[in-house]
Amino acid sequence: MTHPLFEKHRATLEGALGAIATRSYWSAFPEMPSPKLYGETAPDDGKRAFEAHLGKQFELGQPGQSGWHGGEASPYGIELGVSYPVCDPEVLIAAGLEAMKGWQAVGADGRTGICLEILDRLNKQSFELAHSVMMTTGQGWMMAFQAGAPHAQDRGLEAVAYAWREQSFVPAETVWEKPQGKNPPLVMKKHFQIVGRGIGLVIGCGTFPTWNTYPGLFAALSTGNAVIVKPHSNAILPAAITVRTIRAVLAENGIDPNLVSLCVTDKRATTQALATHPAVKSVDFTGGNVFGQWLIDNSRQAQVYAELAGVNNIVIDSTDSYKAMLGNLAFTLSLYSGQMCTTSQALFVPAGGIQTEDGPKSYDEFCADLAKAIERFLSKPEVAHAVLGAIQSADTAERIELANSGTLGKVVLASTALDNPEFPAAKVRTPVLLACDATDEKAYMEERFGPISFIVKVADTAAGIALSERVVSTHGALTAGVYSTRQDVIDAMTEATWRSKVALSINLTSGVFVNQSAAFSDYHGTGGNPAANASYADSAFVANRFRVIQRRYHA
Amino acid sequence: MTHPLFEKHRATLEGALGAIATRSYWSAFPEMPSPKLYGETAPDDGKRAFEAHLGKQFELGQPGQSGWHGGEASPYGIELGVSYPVCDPEVLIAAGLEAMKGWQAVGADGRTGICLEILDRLNKQSFELAHSVMMTTGQGWMMAFQAGAPHAQDRGLEAVAYAWREQSFVPAETVWEKPQGKNPPLVMKKHFQIVGRGIGLVIGCGTFPTWNTYPGLFAALSTGNAVIVKPHSNAILPAAITVRTIRAVLAENGIDPNLVSLCVTDKRATTQALATHPAVKSVDFTGGNVFGQWLIDNSRQAQVYAELAGVNNIVIDSTDSYKAMLGNLAFTLSLYSGQMCTTSQALFVPAGGIQTEDGPKSYDEFCADLAKAIERFLSKPEVAHAVLGAIQSADTAERIELANSGTLGKVVLASTALDNPEFPAAKVRTPVLLACDATDEKAYMEERFGPISFIVKVADTAAGIALSERVVSTHGALTAGVYSTRQDVIDAMTEATWRSKVALSINLTSGVFVNQSAAFSDYHGTGGNPAANASYADSAFVANRFRVIQRRYHA
Repeated sequence: MTHPLFEKHRATLEGALGAIATRSYWSAFPEMPSPKLYGETAPDDGKRAFEAHLGKQFELGQPGQSGWHGGEASPYGIELGVSYPVCDPEVLIAAGLEAMKGWQAVGADGRTGICLEILDRLNKQSFELAHSVMMTTGQGWMMAFQAGAPHAQDRGLEAVAYAWREQSFVPAETVWEKPQGKNPPLVMKKHFQIVGRGIGLVIGCGTFPTWNTYPGLFAALSTGNAVIVKPHSNAILPAAITVRTIRAVLAENGIDPNLVSLCVTDKRATTQALATHPAVKSVDFTGGNVFGQWLIDNSRQAQVYAELAGVNNIVIDSTDSYKAMLGNLAFTLSLYSGQMCTTSQALFVPAGGIQTEDGPKSYDEFCADLAKAIERFLSKPEVAHAVLGAIQSADTAERIELANSGTLGKVVLASTALDNPEFPAAKVRTPVLLACDATDEKAYMEERFGPISFIVKVADTAAGIALSERVVSTHGALTAGVYSTRQDVIDAMTEATWRSKVALSINLTSGVFVNQSAAFSDYHGTGGNPAANASYADSAFVANRFRVIQRRYHA
Repeated sequence: MTHPLFEKHRATLEGALGAIATRSYWSAFPEMPSPKLYGETAPDDGKRAFEAHLGKQFELGQPGQSGWHGGEASPYGIELGVSYPVCDPEVLIAAGLEAMKGWQAVGADGRTGICLEILDRLNKQSFELAHSVMMTTGQGWMMAFQAGAPHAQDRGLEAVAYAWREQSFVPAETVWEKPQGKNPPLVMKKHFQIVGRGIGLVIGCGTFPTWNTYPGLFAALSTGNAVIVKPHSNAILPAAITVRTIRAVLAENGIDPNLVSLCVTDKRATTQALATHPAVKSVDFTGGNVFGQWLIDNSRQAQVYAELAGVNNIVIDSTDSYKAMLGNLAFTLSLYSGQMCTTSQALFVPAGGIQTEDGPKSYDEFCADLAKAIERFLSKPEVAHAVLGAIQSADTAERIELANSGTLGKVVLASTALDNPEFPAAKVRTPVLLACDATDEKAYMEERFGPISFIVKVADTAAGIALSERVVSTHGALTAGVYSTRQDVIDAMTEATWRSKVALSINLTSGVFVNQSAAFSDYHGTGGNPAANASYADSAFVANRFRVIQRRYHA
């Protein structure tokens, strides 16, 4: 008697449930942008679908519309010119609350089935989404496809799986029969209704408009809430495509599409009013500390799930694969020009240098060798452009200039501008590497988002581990790493991360990188340090998004 | 390879896990204070154990002790004279954090097993605990035994079961093997460590010092946290007995007993400093709105699980069992002199009266009949004393006087003082019933804790349902009820409770009462209205109390 879409996607759900139980490798959505996997015409169809949006009004059919707003500027320098409906937030809220009735009535299996159908449909739009992510964020094509489409869909599915698991634990009804000795038992019939808490507000970021939006969106939606997506002002299109597809699938299945809407505004006050509205019961946010902290301080009526800034770091003690380590670090620091919330910003290297299979390397040698590794890795323009993408914001470009000026530390490797022949107006910058002392805390101990990293000279490995723990505990981090051939060092770093509560990557030298997090296996954020108060995804990410309302009577 | 105590108590855990999955009747701890169940000498042993505490210093062996503090005043008027260690909160915090290392290392199965052993040991102390609860709170003996001991133990076990279920979903390790087409797969070994978040502060209340303390205490403890119990200043003994037993079981099992400590203080500032300490990561609180709201506003570094005031209410439309309904209501309003957070405060009765199997009853007739039912129910002194117990606080006694004065509404039944021959100094008061109009919101629309109830005249049943929804949404409630013979009324009330998020009892006429909540089956609080931001117990109550820290490396 479950919902037909639940039955249709049961195998996918079971795969996801199995994956979150074992956290071994699994994926529902192919990550290769291959015509064999997505259909022969999919690449062209997707590109055309993306291009068809350009210069147009993006119709969503939402209530309360008063006008249009656009203004996205592509980091690749192409003209986008899409405009989106501007709708009265009060109307969107009222319509969302109204739509929750039908969404509650369809039950957890119905909500889960419909969410799985939505994800399946979004997967079919992966090329369209990838182009829209690439052109609004500046990601390279492969990252835009993978992180923007299948990996984001996997993260959404992961949230749906957690939400289903928790909801499925709540029995719809029970008979409660309490023995009374020799007397007849007390018998009560009880019903347990899962109800959403209200409006889930999901505030997107400018760099990963789907990957960082889908977990909160699908967690809130599948647990019975209405959702308003407030995209970053420069990455609206991927969110708009997503919301349009969601609304279409809802309507096809007899659910009021106003359950999910897009809120586009150029006024910070509108977002603030939304975030503090009594009907908004959850806020999912990815972005900077200033607005994130404002939300935590002011959205007191809601549960806030916030991913904020951090200072990701790696302790480098020793290695038996020096070249491979440098290559791994070079990739990490270059990928999407370091514009990932998981990119390492500080490398803690002992003043006395490190041990390698080629003998000791001094601190200065390590600095020079890492700079060379980055230069070598980016020496082929086609590789460089594919990996670096473009600089997403003017603020990041300014931070690069500041780092290049040498005021934050000694410039070991300066950032340079590259010309992208395919996109002549693209802002492309290579990473800047700075050397500084552990005491220069003002330089490295705040997030400097972008391709800016510090090789921080620490007294010794133990000091590096202690500094890592302090940085994570006080400033937060989504990722930490350690390179060492000594088990006692790895153990000490492991215990430090238990206290500071950050995910640790150990001795990465081949095709896995500290800044990568795989759905169903790697928890993204721990929720235990200042960089994020929640994790993608775990039970805590979903369990407080719904409530159980019981009723009981004598049977 | 699981912990021996996990194996010892496996059947109990499995029973609890089965019960939370079906939410049908189940209990681990016998609720009857019977020598057959607890041992022939248990009643006498327990009484002697309680009496042995009187007039003595209650040794706990905690660090940082600077003196002794007591001062509990028994509502039964007996001399208690117990004093408890006063310890420096900073020392308790440091010791708790230090003890967390070993608690983490013992693993989720070890923590679960040890918590189950603690509950088993507390169960063996049920008579001692019951006397201590009775004499500090003023509960009648049977309630003190049941709610104070086995029912509280069941609620603690429920929290342990939820916590175990969530923790058991986190695999200790995995091998992540990602196919790479024709190339060898990427293979990573990953470990997932469950770590507690820090100190769990559990602040008890004066009326249910174990029942309202054990859920948060065991939820925080079993998920890897240290716990500091801060009891109500007038109900320390039950908490002290509990903490002593916990510390003994911890020590017996190689865990630093300072993991759990008792914080006794007569300074509000000490509690406030504790609640805002950076190391305190969760606060469980039951009590009034003023301090509860202070905690929510100020304990920003912690997750606050708060049960606050509310205005529980019942809509009375019609019945086919008038006498049984009145009897059920009379019991509810009398039990523990209404000093339960679940006692109904407002009965919404249509101005035009109600339909019964004996024909219509006017509003005034209903008022008079309910007053008579209460008088009749309490007419036998032995029944009255067993049910009413004594008045816990001077504030409650003052509220009764205020209600008796008629300034809050027309006095339908005045509260009277009864003499308890067994405890001549006991403050015993019967319930006061007031009649008022729905417009007299200032009278009935705030919690008036104690045996004070309002029969509120509403225009009609629909107005009563709407008023109930508004009261719950704006002022909160832990319980709501409805009496009606009409399915459409029951449906409308059901839907109202889905929106206002309160548990509903329908047509209770026999041995189940709206103010009773059974562990493993009834959710206590929904977490969805102002009376409580969390529920005993559900996944949300436990899932955010621990974090998962992963590490990964090439395999």
